Parts: sequence; structure tokens; C-alpha cells
Amino acid sequence: MTSFFSVHQRSQKSQARLGTITTSHGKIQTPAFVPVGTKGTIKALTPSLIKDIGVQVSFVNTYHLVTHPGPEIIAKAGGIHTYSKMNIPLMSDSGGFQVFSLAQNSRKAKLRADDSESPLVEKISEDGVKFRSLYDGQLIEFTPEKSMEYQRQIGADLLMAFDECTYYPATHEYAEKALMRTHEWLKRCIAYKKTRHDVFCPPHPKGAQAIDKKHMSSFFHEQYLYGIIQGGTFEDLRVASAKFIAEQDVPGVAIGGVSVGETKEEMREQVKWIVPYLPADKPVHLLGVGQIDDIIDLVKYGIDTFDCVEPTRLARMGVIYSHSNKQIDINKSIFKADLTRVDEKCSCYVCQNFTKSYLHHLFKQREILGYTLATYHNLWVMEKLMENIREMILQGKI
Amino acid sequence: MTSFFSVHQRSQKSQARLGTITTSHGKIQTPAFVPVGTKGTIKALTPSLIKDIGVQVSFVNTYHLVTHPGPEIIAKAGGIHTYSKMNIPLMSDSGGFQVFSLAQNSRKAKLRADDSESPLVEKISEDGVKFRSLYDGQLIEFTPEKSMEYQRQIGADLLMAFDECTYYPATHEYAEKALMRTHEWLKRCIAYKKTRHDVFCPPHPKGAQAIDKKHMSSFFHEQYLYGIIQGGTFEDLRVASAKFIAEQDVPGVAIGGVSVGETKEEMREQVKWIVPYLPADKPVHLLGVGQIDDIIDLVKYGIDTFDCVEPTRLARMGVIYSHSNKQIDINKSIFKADLTRVDEKCSCYVCQNFTKSYLHHLFKQREILGYTLATYHNLWVMEKLMENIREMILQGKI
Repeated sequence: MTSFFSVHQRSQKSQARLGTITTSHGKIQTPAFVPVGTKGTIKALTPSLIKDIGVQVSFVNTYHLVTHPGPEIIAKAGGIHTYSKMNIPLMSDSGGFQVFSLAQNSRKAKLRADDSESPLVEKISEDGVKFRSLYDGQLIEFTPEKSMEYQRQIGADLLMAFDECTYYPATHEYAEKALMRTHEWLKRCIAYKKTRHDVFCPPHPKGAQAIDKKHMSSFFHEQYLYGIIQGGTFEDLRVASAKFIAEQDVPGVAIGGVSVGETKEEMREQVKWIVPYLPADKPVHLLGVGQIDDIIDLVKYGIDTFDCVEPTRLARMGVIYSHSNKQIDINKSIFKADLTRVDEKCSCYVCQNFTKSYLHHLFKQREILGYTLATYHNLWVMEKLMENIREMILQGKI
Repeated sequence: MTSFFSVHQRSQKSQARLGTITTSHGKIQTPAFVPVGTKGTIKALTPSLIKDIGVQVSFVNTYHLVTHPGPEIIAKAGGIHTYSKMNIPLMSDSGGFQVFSLAQNSRKAKLRADDSESPLVEKISEDGVKFRSLYDGQLIEFTPEKSMEYQRQIGADLLMAFDECTYYPATHEYAEKALMRTHEWLKRCIAYKKTRHDVFCPPHPKGAQAIDKKHMSSFFHEQYLYGIIQGGTFEDLRVASAKFIAEQDVPGVAIGGVSVGETKEEMREQVKWIVPYLPADKPVHLLGVGQIDDIIDLVKYGIDTFDCVEPTRLARMGVIYSHSNKQIDINKSIFKADLTRVDEKCSCYVCQNFTKSYLHHLFKQREILGYTLATYHNLWVMEKLMENIREMILQGKI
């Protein structure tokens, strides 16, 4: 039997490693980049283009899918893979990050960088969080159990435990309290998943069955839970959290909250603190971090997967990546008559076929095709970057 | 040598006919629908999806391409086929329709249904039209010669002569004057095209050559001019125009201005008036008309090609066509949990893979993929409709 995660090679120079995550929707060669498909679609790409690019795994947001179309509908459809036809391994978050960041944003005016925890806590109890959907005003509750149940219904392969992503800047006192809550919540997530183990997959999809027989085997699939290391900007809390998470009965480990409000240096510092405590035999996911320089640096600390909206979000703004790690803003008028390839060094569909001038034209005219082509290219660059990184680890260069 | 247009079968029951238009970018089996790709892209579709659907020919707008990116850039890229990678036969309009309708819209408040021609004529001289680009304020001039030159540079396969699309309602006196002008302009278009015959194709594409060697043969291609029948809502003028156009040395005939402001019945009436005068050996294009019921009725009058924005524009609004000629608005909440196919009778990529619920979800969340999938499906339905019509003509049923 194939294990969930296997490491093929460990670097002599760093904590970098080559591995494989095996799910019922396919294998992920790590280190891997995880493009974000928030609402069950990587924006502007068809599932066939996603395959074309070679995207290995994508990330969906439980909060967004719970507010629309709702987890029951996705479950009835046979799970998010069948519903969206993104037939690759998928990762879902717990909903916690969106719930807390929305709560924080709506209170930013009131938020003070002092000891008061009242602005955030009025929405959070030890049991979980209640909030009104921004979409239709519906009252939605997130507790550890609810988050697990929502993620069961959505049906991704890799799940995140429900956590509180500490706001920035927070006091040590508040960060510690939030961390204790997150650890308690992880235990409840594990317990809930265990009691519901026999049904921890989407229910039999009557509606979906009619339209999609060939994916039937994937309806009943294993879902793997990741515990999340929190602790804000405090080394003692981060280390305590890493030790705690490492001891729990979960197949994966994630690092949360390092992308919220801090500088890049602080963010990397926070990752470095916990490196000695990361389990050697579990995949490590870094939540919300994935700029190219971050990835190049952080694979050395043993991070296996990175999710980040940047390559796709910037693409839709006209920011085009290149293999030489330079970005261009295709909206600039210098590209209007530039008939060279989008990226001379790139072998992707976009670069084989289109000029900077045409892409500039599409962006200036707000043509949808521009967003599609830019997204395709940026994700292609990310996939090639990860291939190169894996090759360099293989050759002992990282 | 293959002729530009050949008719394989003529109906015994009507003027309907089966034909083939041959261009250097491929053949068009007629009757055919011509989806609109205004700015050099059928909105929301990649060129590979356009091929997938089986789109035979698309329509680009000279006015829009002249305002952005400009005809010189497209010519330098090797023409619109190379620039946009829509490597199928393309038709361009003359720019006249947009110029006149913009002029009319900006003066609608002042426009009276009386003898005064001043609101429109202040922009139009016997020589042509000058206007300021809405895009960047640049002064752009359209004359018969300029329109031909712009279309030469854009490099579509099928060109339209520069015409004045009579506003509605217009007086007989005004419509006659505009018609005379249009006829004079056609002669000037023919004359300009003849004097420039040896270069009537995009210039040697230095920039494009580098990126696309395999399409080199298509850079020097024949462009075929269509004369346009105008005459407004007046039978005598329409007939006179049809007779005049039929006598000119042009490979194709188009019918213009029937979609402007009139009822469907009047529009069809205007087409019927001129049927006896249409040349039997030239393809006939109906400008701006292509609702399904229009097409079904008007192929009987010998119309070979129809362009219309409706299937693509409605798709982006969430209006989904079906093979049974019913439309649904996928935005409606009844589709939120509807896990049946988008169209049970359809074999397209969208209907084989996605449910109404998922498409509803994409539209409610304004996800770009929704526009792509809806456009794909609607154009697929149009292609199947045209296939069926051709089959029925073949079987003598139309």
C-alpha cells in the first residue's frame, strides 16, 4: 500500500527534501506550488487548461464555498472534484482565516495595537465563530466540528484543522490565548473526524452519478487532515505550537498566520524558529506564502507545499512573470507595438503563440482572454520553477 | 483552381442553397453563422476553444481595431490571423456602421424623425467621416480608401466596402442621398483595391516571422470584397441598391442596415424585396442579423452567412441556449441546486462536464470561467443549428 507521504531524498545542505503526497485524485511531487481556486475554479482557467499547465494540486476556500453554493450542494454533486471538474488533488482550508480576517477588517477602525482583545473576541467564543454571510446575510457558524463537516462535504483530499489566525499586531497574552484555543480545536477536529471516519467522504452522489460515471471510484476517497501551527510573532509560542502539533495524530502539518501583516524577514524568521520541531515524515504546508523568492528560500527549511494567490491575482492585473524572475506590467504603453514573445525563454502555449502587443491590447480593452492567457503563463512559470527546484534538490544543489 | 464561392445544391422549394466559400485560411460551408470577435478575440474563448467548437469564420470590427491597437501594428504582426491566432477565415466590416451609430447615439437627443438631416450630416461629407476616438481622443478619418487600407492592414479574408448605414427612422430623401453616397463609395473601394492589388495583403511580417514560421504562407493571401446593399426601409431604394451592387465587380454581396431600429417583420420584408436581384453565383452576407428564428427563415431567401453578437453577448449575461431553441437564464435561483446537465441534449464539452448548479455558482460569483463555458456552449448550439440547416437543405427539406 502506498503511504500518504514519502520522502525520496533529503538534502545534505539543508532541510530541503523531495517527496510524494499520494491522494485518490493523484500524486503531488513536492516541493509543490498550490494555486488558489477559491470558489472552485482557478480564476479564468478551464479544467483542461489547468491540466495543460501541469498544475498538481489546487486550493479551495471553505468559507467561500460554504457561503455559495453551500456544502450540501457540492456533496450532492459528488464533491468538489466532480462539481468543478478540477480532477486533481485539492486542498481546502478550514474557513478560519477568512472568518477572522473579515471580522478584523470590519473592525479595523476600532482596532488598537494594545492589550484590548475586545474588537475581535466579540465574535469568537471557545466554541467557535458565528457570522453573517456577506453574500446573503445568512447566519453561518464555524466550529471545529462544523469546519470538519463542511470540508467533508466539499470533499477535498487535504483538509485543514479549524484554527484562529491571530491578528497582527497582537499582544503575547492574546496570541497565547488564541493558540490554546487553536490547539483545543485541533483535538476536537481529530475527534470529530474519527467518530465520522466511516462516512468521511461525500455521500453517494445521485445527481452526479447520472452525469459522470467515470469518476465514481473517486467519490469515496480518503481525506487527510493537517494540524496548523500558530503562535503569532512570538518565538516561544511558535515553538510550543510546533511541538504540540507534531505530537498529534494528523497526517500533515501546516504553518499558519505567518503571512498576516509582518515583513518578509519576520515571516521567514517565524518559519525558521520551528524547523527543528517539524516531523520528518509528514508533509509540511505553508499557508498563504508563495512569492518566488519565498519559495526558493523556504524549501531549504523543509516546506513541501506553498499556496498563494499572487501568480493568479497579479496575472489578472496584467503582471506577467518570467523565468528569469522579473515581472512586467503588460498594461504599459511600451508594449503596445512590441511584437516579441511574452517571455522569450518560455515554452508555454501563450509564449509560443502570442506577442506582448496582443496581450497589451487584450488588457487595455479589458478582454477576458487577457486574464486567461496571463494566468496560464504565470502558473506555467510557477510549475517550471518548482520542477527546477525539485531537480536541484535531486542534484544536491539546494 | 478552386473558385472563391461554389454552390453545390439549390433547393427546389426556396432560394436556400448549400455552398462553400474558399479562403486561404480555410473553407466555410454555407449557410454559416459568423460569431463576432470584435477586437480580435471572440470574448472569453481561447483560439483552441474556438477550433474545438468548430467555428468556421469570425467577424472583426475595423473601427475597434483601428482605435486599438491600430492597423499598422496588426499589419506588422503579419495580420489579424497571426496577431490573434484565430487561424480561421475572418471577415472584417468597413468601420462605417460603428462610426455612424456612434455619431447617431451621441446625437439621439437632438435627432428628429423629420426632414432634417443636420444631426448626422455634420459629421459626414461626400468624402467620408472624421471622428475622435472614444479611446484616446485621436482624430481618425474613414473614407472609402482609408477603410480599404485599414482592412488591407488588418488582413481579414472577407472585406466590406465602406458604406453609410442609414439611421432609423430616416426620410426617403435622406435615405436616397445616403444610398447614392454608398454606391459612389463602393466604386472608390473597388478602384482603390484594384490599384493596390499587388500589395493587397499585409506586408512582410518581420516581427511575426520570428515567432510563427508555420503561418508564413498565409501572410500573402487574397482578400475578397463585399459590396453592401443599403436603402433603409424603402422598397424602391433597396431594389435599386440590389441591382446596382449585383452589377459591380465584387466577389461578394452583403445586406446592411436591416437590423437598425426596425421590427423583425420589417427586417425580413426588406430582405425579401431584394431576393430576386441577388446574384446567383456570389455569396450573400446579412450584416448584424442572426437570431435563431431569423436564420431559419432567412436561409430560405438565399442568405449564406449571418453575423450576430447575440449568442456570445447573451452568454456573458448568463443566457444559455439549447438545442430545442429555448433559452434559460442561469442566474435564476432555481438552478442553484440543479445537478442536471446544462442542456440534456447537448454533446459539447460544457454539457458533458458541468451542471446547471455549477454554472449558476460561477455566474453568481462572477467567475470568468462562467463566461467562457456559456460562450462555448452557445456557439456550439449555433454550429449544430447550422449543420442541421445544411443537412436539411441537402435532403431537400428547406
